[in-house]
Formats: sequence, C-alpha cells, structure tokens
Amino acid sequence: VNKFPIVLLGPDLPNTKIQIQWPLTLLLHNPPLLLFQMIVWEQEHFQGKCQEFTSECTNIMNCGFDNIRSLRVESGAWVGYEHHDFQGQQFILERGEYPHWSGWSGSLSYHVERFMSFRPVYCSHRSSRMMIYEKENFMGRTVELCDDYPSLQAMGWMNNEVGSMHVQSGAWVCYQYPGYRGYQYILECERHSGDYQHWKNWGSHAQTPQIQSVRRIQH
Amino acid sequence: VNKFPIVLLGPDLPNTKIQIQWPLTLLLHNPPLLLFQMIVWEQEHFQGKCQEFTSECTNIMNCGFDNIRSLRVESGAWVGYEHHDFQGQQFILERGEYPHWSGWSGSLSYHVERFMSFRPVYCSHRSSRMMIYEKENFMGRTVELCDDYPSLQAMGWMNNEVGSMHVQSGAWVCYQYPGYRGYQYILECERHSGDYQHWKNWGSHAQTPQIQSVRRIQH
Repeated sequence: VNKFPIVLLGPDLPNTKIQIQWPLTLLLHNPPLLLFQMIVWEQEHFQGKCQEFTSECTNIMNCGFDNIRSLRVESGAWVGYEHHDFQGQQFILERGEYPHWSGWSGSLSYHVERFMSFRPVYCSHRSSRMMIYEKENFMGRTVELCDDYPSLQAMGWMNNEVGSMHVQSGAWVCYQYPGYRGYQYILECERHSGDYQHWKNWGSHAQTPQIQSVRRIQH
Repeated sequence: VNKFPIVLLGPDLPNTKIQIQWPLTLLLHNPPLLLFQMIVWEQEHFQGKCQEFTSECTNIMNCGFDNIRSLRVESGAWVGYEHHDFQGQQFILERGEYPHWSGWSGSLSYHVERFMSFRPVYCSHRSSRMMIYEKENFMGRTVELCDDYPSLQAMGWMNNEVGSMHVQSGAWVCYQYPGYRGYQYILECERHSGDYQHWKNWGSHAQTPQIQSVRRIQH
C-alpha cells in the first residue's frame, strides 16, 4: 500500500493545498454525499412524471409540473409550501416516503392539495435552542427550549398561545395543536436573524398565535 | 406555630396512622392532584353540553353525548378512539386544547369526525424503551429506540415499514408518515405484555405495516 500522502495543487486556488491520505479507494468508492436530495412525482403513489431536486424550487410549474402529488426525501430536511415563492401553508419534510397529500399536509382546517415550492432547511447547529415569550416583541414571561415538547402546557406554559419567539440555534417546527398537529411554522436561526416577534412573521398563512407543541428539526 | 405533628387514626383503616407535619396549610390549600383529567364538549370551540372525566369512557353515548367535537386535556395523556369500546382510529391526546376534530385527528386518509370512546395512557416509567423489528414475530433486523424519531429512515432504518415491535418500558406513538403524521398507533408496555408481533395487533384500524416516525408519550 502506498503510504505517501498525495498533495494536490488546486489550479483555481494556487495557494490551496489539498492533502489526501490513503486509503484513497474509500473516498473514490463512496458516492458524493448529497446533503439535500428529494424526488417528486406528479401523481400519487410515486407515479407519472418525476424529477430529482438537490436545491430549492420557487415554482414547480417552471419545471413542467402542474402539481406534486407524491414525494420521497432521500436526505436532508425540506420545507414545502402551498403556493409558489414560499408562500402559504408550510410542511416540514423529513427523510421518508409521502405517497399522497395527507402524508405531508398534517391536520389542517382546510385541505391543502397544492404544493408549489420547496427549499432545504439548514440546521447546521448540533444543539437547538429557542426562547418563547408570552407576548409579542419578546415581552412577558419567557422559557428557553432545547428539547421536543409534544405539549407546551404539560411542561408548564400558561396557555395555548405564544406571543413571539427567538431561535438561538438550529431549526424548529411549531404546531398549533398538541402532539405535533395543526398549522405548522418552520423557524430557523438563519432566517430573520432568528427573530419572530409577532405571529404574522411566522409565515404568510399565519392567522393565530396558537402554538401548543414544538420540536427540533434534526437530520 | 404549632410544631407538634398531628396523628390521625383512620376510622376505616384502624391500623393506619397518618402523620401530618406542619405547615398544614400548604397541604390544605393544594387541590387534590388529578393524574388524569379531561373535559369534553358536544360542540366545537368548547360549546354546548360538557362533562369532566378522570377515567375511561367506553361509549360517550352512555353519557348522553352524540359525539365529541372539542376537548381540553387538563392532565395526563389519553387515547381517543373513533368507535365505542376502544375500536377504530386512535388519537393521542396530551395536555392542551383541541377546539375541533382537526386538532386530534392528524392527517388521515379519511376524515374521522367521530370520537366515541377514550381511556388514560399509563406511562409509569421514567425511561421509555422499545425494540422495532424488520419482520413480524420479532424477526429480522432490529433496533432499540429510547428517544423520539421524526424520521426512522433518517436514523438508518431500511425502509418505510416495521414488521413487529416490543415495548420494554413506557408508552409510544407510532405514525405512518415522517414528522408524526398519518395513522397513529399507541403502544404500551402494560398492554399485550408490550408485544405487538404483527401490524394487525397495532389497532383495530391497522391496514398497513407502514411506520415512519415514532415518539415517546411523556407527561
């Protein structure tokens, strides 16, 4: 076995040396790591026209789809939106299979059968931390969260509402009802500087300050 | 302040001495701890006929209700069922408010607007442990779970199905889709000796071995 390290001089980065240690075969045999990979189908149960995505899509009509009716997340966490340009209802999409709309829509006051745009969720932090506040603009009583809470009231929160939130690290899903049900809001430390000072900032579809369960996004 | 302990001799339990230390006021001012308490209403948004429950109900029609359309869990975790005698779709109910059916029904292939029986979920264990198996009758590859998993595949499980499960301690909710969506199955170590050897044992409504997310019930 050749024990010499290989030193590559990057032609575009003349001052950068990339040093590769043996065994090189391990590196070559591994397929490139796709941090984000999702396959979508135009019909339910993974039928019809299909396409693979590794980054965001602002409007699936621009890719020749009239709608998405099933999908499989191969890697990473994604957020899907009811309308193009990341508007309307939000749906967290984690690794696994979603054969039709009920797999991603959650339990909503109205059926969302449209799914027009999506993007990766970046959760680069190992630990997830978030402050929740009783009132808007980070006022009133506050609690720091660093775990999953299927019922905020069971852990001592005073009622079924949250006034404002600040994401210190990681990415979170907040839900209208206990047990991770109802309207979903994806909150990220890398968006809005992590500040969500009023329920109207939680998403374009937000209509209420009701939040009764919260969990981290981890992948 | 009287520092003497009070010794009560229970009239029904002549050999039992109950010793109470001062301050007695603290004890008297605390309401009795109800481990399980749920209030249900016949109409949405906590309207109409209402009743408080502290234990199971096999048929809400026997209590003069034709249906339950909203509820509030004050303490404990409960499981609600579509039909009387704990049959049909299952819904985990944790502390919080459920103003209408979408709050508890989750995202299902069909709408469940009926809610006819319910019972407490006993999760007496501090730690929750469960084994999941690739095939029925506890065969094939296996993994021990002791945390919440919004995506089993993201943590390395091979596909979107689970063949059988054994609950070693605590109580769990298993879901058809990632992110705690789709059909729900409440599995408890204190039922069936914790053994769920085939998907037909997961509940009377079970129609598929699909399980893509799993979480503990804690309260």
